[in-house]
Amino acid sequence: ILKAALAEIPAADIAEYIDQNFEVYSALALLDKMPSDQQAEVFGYLRPNNQEELASHMEVGVLAQLFRDMSSDERADVYALLDVKLQDAVMRRLAKREREDLLRLASYEEGTVGAVMTSDYAAIPLAGTVGDALKRLRQSAPEKETIYQTYVVDKDHRLQGVLSLRDILTAAPSETIEEIMTRDVVVLKPDMPQSEAARIISRYDLIAIPVVSDDDILIGMVTFDDAMDVVEEEDTESIHKSATVGRLESGIKDASPFIIYRSRINWLVLLVFANIFSGLGMMYFEDTIATNIALLFFLPLLIASGGNTGAQAATLIVRGMATNDVEKKDWLYMLGKELLVSVGLGVTMAAAISAVAFFRVDPVIIPIVALSMVCIVLVGSLVGVLLPFILKRVGWDPAVASAPLVTTIADAGGVLIYFGIAASFLTLTPPA
Amino acid sequence: ILKAALAEIPAADIAEYIDQNFEVYSALALLDKMPSDQQAEVFGYLRPNNQEELASHMEVGVLAQLFRDMSSDERADVYALLDVKLQDAVMRRLAKREREDLLRLASYEEGTVGAVMTSDYAAIPLAGTVGDALKRLRQSAPEKETIYQTYVVDKDHRLQGVLSLRDILTAAPSETIEEIMTRDVVVLKPDMPQSEAARIISRYDLIAIPVVSDDDILIGMVTFDDAMDVVEEEDTESIHKSATVGRLESGIKDASPFIIYRSRINWLVLLVFANIFSGLGMMYFEDTIATNIALLFFLPLLIASGGNTGAQAATLIVRGMATNDVEKKDWLYMLGKELLVSVGLGVTMAAAISAVAFFRVDPVIIPIVALSMVCIVLVGSLVGVLLPFILKRVGWDPAVASAPLVTTIADAGGVLIYFGIAASFLTLTPPA
Ligand SMILES: [Mg+2]
Ligand SMILES: [Mg+2]
Ligand SMILES: [Mg+2]
Ligand SMILES: [Mg+2]
Ligand SMILES: [Mg+2]
Ligand SMILES: [Mg+2]
Ligand SMILES: [Mg+2]
Ligand SMILES: [Mg+2]
Ligand SMILES: [Mg+2]
Ligand SMILES: [Mg+2]
Ligand SMILES: [Mg+2]
Ligand SMILES: [Mg+2]
Ligand SMILES: [Mg+2]
Repeated sequence: ILKAALAEIPAADIAEYIDQNFEVYSALALLDKMPSDQQAEVFGYLRPNNQEELASHMEVGVLAQLFRDMSSDERADVYALLDVKLQDAVMRRLAKREREDLLRLASYEEGTVGAVMTSDYAAIPLAGTVGDALKRLRQSAPEKETIYQTYVVDKDHRLQGVLSLRDILTAAPSETIEEIMTRDVVVLKPDMPQSEAARIISRYDLIAIPVVSDDDILIGMVTFDDAMDVVEEEDTESIHKSATVGRLESGIKDASPFIIYRSRINWLVLLVFANIFSGLGMMYFEDTIATNIALLFFLPLLIASGGNTGAQAATLIVRGMATNDVEKKDWLYMLGKELLVSVGLGVTMAAAISAVAFFRVDPVIIPIVALSMVCIVLVGSLVGVLLPFILKRVGWDPAVASAPLVTTIADAGGVLIYFGIAASFLTLTPPA
Repeated sequence: ILKAALAEIPAADIAEYIDQNFEVYSALALLDKMPSDQQAEVFGYLRPNNQEELASHMEVGVLAQLFRDMSSDERADVYALLDVKLQDAVMRRLAKREREDLLRLASYEEGTVGAVMTSDYAAIPLAGTVGDALKRLRQSAPEKETIYQTYVVDKDHRLQGVLSLRDILTAAPSETIEEIMTRDVVVLKPDMPQSEAARIISRYDLIAIPVVSDDDILIGMVTFDDAMDVVEEEDTESIHKSATVGRLESGIKDASPFIIYRSRINWLVLLVFANIFSGLGMMYFEDTIATNIALLFFLPLLIASGGNTGAQAATLIVRGMATNDVEKKDWLYMLGKELLVSVGLGVTMAAAISAVAFFRVDPVIIPIVALSMVCIVLVGSLVGVLLPFILKRVGWDPAVASAPLVTTIADAGGVLIYFGIAASFLTLTPPA
């Protein structure tokens, strides 16, 4: 009865239940109640931590069976989690074909297309009719990750074309594969970054894209569902980068305090040193400040304004680059547009702060503050726009132009601009 | 010849070519060289700005034909771009069924599942065999967005189950639909947020999910490719939010300076006023500062450190919430972990800055700076963790806990902590 009930529940839901109430032996007992292909499917959805824990508590025979039933891409991910002894023990129990497949898929570097592709694709020979193809797909359906895209290969397994199941079903059974296949196939290479693959899948709205070697031999396929996971991971990584947090292997909830510490400390210390420049700026204008201590009231909001505007500009450009909306060649156009926008922003902000200043301080300070605001916002914005382009130009990830870095630069600029303007105004104005 | 060449190029590529070299008349001429279904497909990939421009330059008859050939979801999007007069003119040329379908799809609010769903789904009646279903799918394939998921409906069009084409192909033609269909169907409601739909599609790795009304009537379907677009848009929006940039309808490259200005100015002005608190803090400690002007050297780096650490913490929590990694109930656990992490961060940063201070300043300042660093980092981090949970609790979008907001709060806290500590130390220490 439990078995029947379990069969109706989506694998992702069973996996979530196991993850959220994780306890090794009850998880193993629950898995044991499912048919082996459901076991494999559920196992594939579990958190890596838990997969590892369960695998190390399973009998090797059971684990090997699980490996046989899992899809080839997920199996390679789990394999990478095991310790070397367990890896060997499982390997010895697999058939030669599975062993070779697993070793091959596990050999690709993390983050490449090879590391996310599956070898459970459907392929058919070039010679043959639509009827043959359909028969073949029917037979091989259970072991393929998808049969909705079929890859047409020649005798050397070189990719010659692609057929969707829709093409096959709407053609006459007597037509030949060669007649109806699409020859201009969008393909991936195994060493491409995963993010690029995900972008291609999204661009062409494809269920799956074939992966070919340099000599056009079909070696795998990336499916849309794995592409969606890649997009989520990539966006998480760049969102973290935007706040100077480094790469985390697991989610923030699972990560240990030390791992979180390590992902955050480098940039923080770097920025501490970078902020010394602002301090030096303050020291340079020590006398101006000492004789006009009221200037300090406006300091935090002026430097923060430059940083905030700059962070906005940098964020817009960095995300625009990530979604291919903004390209390298657009730098001058984007800079020009930001110039317009930031003058508008600066004037509005200057007006706002002047209204406040009017009620509080010596009127001589108002023009100093207003002019500083416009200049600081302008400088912050231009730094925000240019930094991502410069980083991209020198081959760095533009996401390094994070809000904190732009803010730090804008802070130093802000100190110099504000006190610089103040110093020249206050020398010009006769003492009261 | 051109026609044959065009037929081999993916629609997304032709659309990109048109977008990047946009000129109304040459675009229309190029579209005219394609068969009408390719025209419709290419048109669907164009930028909204260009779709609008082209539509307003087409003969109404041509536009109506384009509408007939487009998929129902994309047609509804284009319809919404047209001015009322053109909307009416097109409507009059459509058949009653298409008109009703278009009006219905166009009526859903932007951002809901209804606004992204298509009505070109494949549905089959409950009564019937697998053989019947296959025949029906073959016939209707050309006009459906996907035939890989089929929805089983009763006489009132109520959703009863779902069948994948794989299920159909691997079953015997004589089996009944009722026997082999899956009854526990994951469904969407038309008023759900799109982001939730996208998350569900990604969670269950589905090609498409049916949309049903409150009385279970099948009204549409959301496909994986549109879910991928939703994820990209959502992530862009929350990345922008993290830098206090409001919603932009178009990409940053297309947006006019005024639209960019408008999306950025509100938060900037708000933060200017919020930063007044830091200024007031400085004024409160005016005497301490005036008599110990050397303290100012460390001010920028101390307050920036609190902001940077807080922004990191807030970013990690907000993204964790967006990916469902972190839930409301985790607040205490995350706070405790951050406490550990931030003490580690604070101590490391204090050590770094003490090393610098050692060479530059009066040694009496070193313990003040070091202790301030630890306290400021701690406060910044805790604000960063708590703010997203508090915002979520009161029903706001946690993404409002953007880096600039956390930084502003941390700045004010930093001023008070630093000068507060300095004032008490310096009264305790006898003057040199
Ligand atoms: Mg399998
Ligand atoms: Mg994986
Ligand atoms: Mg992998
Ligand atoms: Mg797409
Ligand atoms: Mg997969
Ligand atoms: Mg997957
Ligand atoms: Mg700051
Ligand atoms: Mg159509
Ligand atoms: Mg759309
Ligand atoms: Mg829509
Ligand atoms: Mg998924
Ligand atoms: Mg669609
Ligand atoms: Mg689409």
